[in-house]
Amino acid sequence: MKAYVYVSLKKSVLDPQGKTIHGALNKMGYKGLADVRQGKYFEIQLDGLNHDQAKAEVERAAKEVLTNPVIEEYRYSIEE
Amino acid sequence: MKAYVYVSLKKSVLDPQGKTIHGALNKMGYKGLADVRQGKYFEIQLDGLNHDQAKAEVERAAKEVLTNPVIEEYRYSIEE
Repeated sequence: MKAYVYVSLKKSVLDPQGKTIHGALNKMGYKGLADVRQGKYFEIQLDGLNHDQAKAEVERAAKEVLTNPVIEEYRYSIEE
Repeated sequence: MKAYVYVSLKKSVLDPQGKTIHGALNKMGYKGLADVRQGKYFEIQLDGLNHDQAKAEVERAAKEVLTNPVIEEYRYSIEE
């Protein structure tokens, strides 16, 4: 079983890295890219947990360790 | 239309950040987490492109700008 946790800046928070990449892509002639935002993601290999246990552990880790709740938000998915 | 590009270290490349996070989670008492790997992801808002054009632009940007081909690999998805 594998979990993927995606952590991104809240929409209300300025994303300078995303802005910089967006500017560079535009300068390099890329077309149709209206905005770019950058985040982190974590691939977590799970072992010896059932689906509910995995959900609980991943959600707790995302909330308490992987995300700064002041400026970041997260979503996650679990693959069997 | 929105594209998501996920960039991660190649499996053959040591992921010290992932290892550090994995160690911390274990020390904090999290159960069943066999391995943790960290990557980046990009949310790209697309404008004025059809699906094929979007695919071509996103794939080119992922290959040429967002990924270091020596140590990283990417996958992407496009949502209408």
